[in-house]
Amino acid sequence: MENYSKLLDRLKEITHLGRAGAVLGWDQQCYMPPGGAEERSEEFAVIGKFTHELFTASETQKLLEGAEAEVTNLSPDSDERLTLRMVRRDFDQAVKIPSALVSELAREEGLAHEIWVKARQDSDWKQFAPKLEKLLDLSRQKAEYLGYTDRIYDALLDQYEPGRTSAEVETVFNNLRPGLVKLVHDIAAAPPISDACLRRDFDEDAQKAFSEYVIGRLGYDFTRGRQDKAVHPFCTSFGRNDVRITTRYEKNWLPSSLMGSIHETGHALYEQGFAPGDDGSPLSNSASLGIHESQSRLWENIVGRSRSFWNIFYPELQQRFPGVLDNISLNDFYRAINRVEPSFIRVEADEVTYNLHIMLRFELEQAMMDGSLKVADVPEAWNEKMRSYLGIVPENDAQGCLQDVHWSAALFGYFPTYSLGTILSAQLYEKAIKDNPAITTDLENGAFESLLEWLRTHVHRPGRRYLPAELIERICGEPAQSHSYLNYLNSKFGALYGLS
Amino acid sequence: MENYSKLLDRLKEITHLGRAGAVLGWDQQCYMPPGGAEERSEEFAVIGKFTHELFTASETQKLLEGAEAEVTNLSPDSDERLTLRMVRRDFDQAVKIPSALVSELAREEGLAHEIWVKARQDSDWKQFAPKLEKLLDLSRQKAEYLGYTDRIYDALLDQYEPGRTSAEVETVFNNLRPGLVKLVHDIAAAPPISDACLRRDFDEDAQKAFSEYVIGRLGYDFTRGRQDKAVHPFCTSFGRNDVRITTRYEKNWLPSSLMGSIHETGHALYEQGFAPGDDGSPLSNSASLGIHESQSRLWENIVGRSRSFWNIFYPELQQRFPGVLDNISLNDFYRAINRVEPSFIRVEADEVTYNLHIMLRFELEQAMMDGSLKVADVPEAWNEKMRSYLGIVPENDAQGCLQDVHWSAALFGYFPTYSLGTILSAQLYEKAIKDNPAITTDLENGAFESLLEWLRTHVHRPGRRYLPAELIERICGEPAQSHSYLNYLNSKFGALYGLS
Repeated sequence: MENYSKLLDRLKEITHLGRAGAVLGWDQQCYMPPGGAEERSEEFAVIGKFTHELFTASETQKLLEGAEAEVTNLSPDSDERLTLRMVRRDFDQAVKIPSALVSELAREEGLAHEIWVKARQDSDWKQFAPKLEKLLDLSRQKAEYLGYTDRIYDALLDQYEPGRTSAEVETVFNNLRPGLVKLVHDIAAAPPISDACLRRDFDEDAQKAFSEYVIGRLGYDFTRGRQDKAVHPFCTSFGRNDVRITTRYEKNWLPSSLMGSIHETGHALYEQGFAPGDDGSPLSNSASLGIHESQSRLWENIVGRSRSFWNIFYPELQQRFPGVLDNISLNDFYRAINRVEPSFIRVEADEVTYNLHIMLRFELEQAMMDGSLKVADVPEAWNEKMRSYLGIVPENDAQGCLQDVHWSAALFGYFPTYSLGTILSAQLYEKAIKDNPAITTDLENGAFESLLEWLRTHVHRPGRRYLPAELIERICGEPAQSHSYLNYLNSKFGALYGLS
Repeated sequence: MENYSKLLDRLKEITHLGRAGAVLGWDQQCYMPPGGAEERSEEFAVIGKFTHELFTASETQKLLEGAEAEVTNLSPDSDERLTLRMVRRDFDQAVKIPSALVSELAREEGLAHEIWVKARQDSDWKQFAPKLEKLLDLSRQKAEYLGYTDRIYDALLDQYEPGRTSAEVETVFNNLRPGLVKLVHDIAAAPPISDACLRRDFDEDAQKAFSEYVIGRLGYDFTRGRQDKAVHPFCTSFGRNDVRITTRYEKNWLPSSLMGSIHETGHALYEQGFAPGDDGSPLSNSASLGIHESQSRLWENIVGRSRSFWNIFYPELQQRFPGVLDNISLNDFYRAINRVEPSFIRVEADEVTYNLHIMLRFELEQAMMDGSLKVADVPEAWNEKMRSYLGIVPENDAQGCLQDVHWSAALFGYFPTYSLGTILSAQLYEKAIKDNPAITTDLENGAFESLLEWLRTHVHRPGRRYLPAELIERICGEPAQSHSYLNYLNSKFGALYGLS
């Protein structure tokens, strides 16, 4: 196994270098002074260049081929074979794209970001459209290099959700859409819920202390991570033993930091939970962005917005913000934190409307990619879908098709992973309580270990051994499906809004 | 100039990679959770390996030789020639030491650190002695590879103070020692000064706010840097536009953070002050550790412990700590912050006794290196010199020869740069006010720009164009000398202690 072992050593070096880059990214968003930006982008470029060169070098190819020859007699389910399958997948993809295209995309993304910021400020799609055309064109080229069987969009989706096709995602979404639209409609007709209590004055230090208390209770290990303040909340990992999250505080909107922290903790628990024996191996990675999102959504929504969760934590919350929530009952608070309201901005959407925002983007992206939707016509198409799915129409493009950063970074194919994750969160949770019914009682008692242990066993420790579809099939004995999620929504929000 | 330009591009990449490593170091000391330590050391190792490989590669040599041929017709004082002189120096040194020795030293240093920590805890030299023997032996090998003309110690000193010999340093120290010892003696016989007022309760947040106010006034640019909390104060740079400092707060010892911040700001002003046109070039570096320390000492002591400085800042200090210093006059405070007292621990020493601590180490290091002092005899030799220079003898080795981390990291030859810097601070300051007498008045008025501008012009912007001895000769028209420093001390402390 000499080649295998040498290959893994080489990959470890690439991993360490990549993680060094991740530390730079964390610093950039948390602490870097403004003056550091220019030099930082040079550091990213150099690290990106070296990691790419090292990975695509002929030496890597030689070791990979040698290693593949060494493991032919091992079981296909051996770690060695599983490892090499993923490395082969990554290698074949990495060498397909010409370096010149990688550089051009990186350069155009850099330029597009500034233009998008300005266009959003001015709420002027026309400013952004030419750059988007360019990025779409380069992404089409990239997709052609990567290759696909059915739709061009599949090649891009595959980068974030390996092995999944857009037709599969479409089926899942098509099964979900009618039920979602009906639920939104029914809720709109029901007596509204107020979330005014969440908009009172919440001291930032107390918010920080409370959210750290909560995520510590959920199982986030502060000796192997930390939480900092950043403009955009995110989770980043420099290996299983240093997984950091960030949050932002809004004095007059409690959920921003609190629910955001629980969301990022879901991501962090996944990364902190990879198998210790996999340290430094390609298996010590997430299966996909969708699986990642299933963890964050599960903890944020299914656990963190449940009545049993607030049964446990609401008295503590009231105590930590003296006088602020004295006249708000647990039930009022629970209803407030689950208020459903069609809105324009995806990142602020509730559990029910969120996926409709994603479906809209998934459909527009595909249409742009296959050429059936012209960039100039995106605002109109966007607004039409908003009307049809959510019954509201943005007043301007800043509230509409210019709101997300993703397209300016050429992240086509990324959005569907958000919904896939959301849908999977319910499917996985359903399986967890079927496997271990005590989890429900444990959660009611504020004991999160049994749920976490189930996730550790079935999702976290396997790491990147399987493609996301394989992983779900292994865990649930069925492919990804949306009825678990729809059942969850109908049951929870039916009760909340008194629907029949 | 094709080779020259390609060489500089290559060196830039190495610089960016090295700076990425510096960011990791900063994070490790400021924010990294304990779990991150193991992975971090792997990241350092990989970055260290790649930078070393890239720099010593035959491609670098080829470009360097080609570039040298391209610049032969340029003036020796052209930036191109000055640049290549330094690159040649670094390259020749880097390729002289076999990789195996570099690795062995790194490994032994890693091991020695833990052993030193334990030995210092137990105050037991015998525990540390065998490791020190080993490190001395490897350092001797390293010195032999590097080469030297006169003493073996010169090869090691040259790493921190390029071009300086130990004989030169010895001359400077020999000229300083008698005057210093006499001054210590005279002060011991004078009525003592109390520093009790510095040991009152100083709120940490107020300390932070005040020290940031002070260093901002001195010229530290917070848009190109930041100050964080760390166990050990330090300054680190990721290029001229991101130069960070750290500090530690002691509630009952005001100078720890306040004077420490000013010290680190001295380092930071140097790094922030490199010429903008040198960005990314090997010239955008400090001339030596001694020159670096001249900047920190100048701002900390000559400026920050002067009466005119506290004339300006003392009322503000009193105001920011309400009630704490109400009954302390400016004069009492000024005397307290300049109290002289022979003490065991170098890092806590005052301006007068500090250099005696360094001379002791310089002498012992040389004797260990040339074999005239056995490692087993270090404690006795240490204590004897403490008695002779400072009139006090440590009660144990923790207070004596085990106090510093340097030897456990094989940093032989490093200590003298602290004293060289201290001595140079007075020599440079003397020249500054000779060149621009208005500086004195400006400082009395709390205007620091004229002093900073003089330093920018003569020390900072030249960066690494010259060897430290050349730089001092160019600025002062004379070599490094100690009488400026001795005059400064005699005049300041003569007045403070009422000496005749």
